[in-house]
Amino acid sequence: MSESKIIPGYVSPDAAEAAFYAAFAHCDIKAMDAVWADAEVVCIHPGSSAIVGRELVLRSWSHILTNAEPPILDIEVLSRIVHDDLAVHVVEEQIRQGNSSPESTLIVLATNVYCLESDGWHLLEHHASTPGPRHPTH
Amino acid sequence: MSESKIIPGYVSPDAAEAAFYAAFAHCDIKAMDAVWADAEVVCIHPGSSAIVGRELVLRSWSHILTNAEPPILDIEVLSRIVHDDLAVHVVEEQIRQGNSSPESTLIVLATNVYCLESDGWHLLEHHASTPGPRHPTH
Repeated sequence: MSESKIIPGYVSPDAAEAAFYAAFAHCDIKAMDAVWADAEVVCIHPGSSAIVGRELVLRSWSHILTNAEPPILDIEVLSRIVHDDLAVHVVEEQIRQGNSSPESTLIVLATNVYCLESDGWHLLEHHASTPGPRHPTH
Repeated sequence: MSESKIIPGYVSPDAAEAAFYAAFAHCDIKAMDAVWADAEVVCIHPGSSAIVGRELVLRSWSHILTNAEPPILDIEVLSRIVHDDLAVHVVEEQIRQGNSSPESTLIVLATNVYCLESDGWHLLEHHASTPGPRHPTH
């Protein structure tokens, strides 16, 4: 993962979060790699089991982002907890394919945990889930 | 909420987590009240929207626990991050009604965030979701 270190860490949890969603929106696996902490990270994709460990988590994102149509993402932060070197955001993600109708927007709730490493803030955990039946599923 | 203060805070995130699941397993709303932090807490029940604020979160647990059959809970901690005054656990919950078959066990993944308050550790966020084939993966 040394290549990712040409991109330094982020100045705040907000900056790391912006980089995470930018990597997602641009289907950029190198940028996604740079966002995640150099630690035993955890990722739970909607409706999926927990993925533990940096290599497996990045592999899951590689599957998602490779040859994907870049999604349109709108992010609203519902809650922010920031302590000295650990932060937790709860966000609502609205995810839509560029060529689809606004009615097909997928709503996802995510808990994002950030930690301060020697070069800045990074993503330590992403837990995403879809709320109830009033939202579109496919 | 002053009545709950006869129960002091917990000595560790693990102790707060044990108290949270004991309150759930015993359908004990007073014990559940005591576990949550005196803060802008967040709770996401499986397949539901985010509930923000102590009163609304406790009301949601009151709906769940009142007149309920106490469930049988098995908890496995998948990941623990503990910093000075903030901690994040990822756990797998196995939830079963006492009179149901083991095959009907519900698997839930939860991210539990704990904070250290003046009287000890308390629950600040609970984000629960069900893994399974019926939800889309992003």
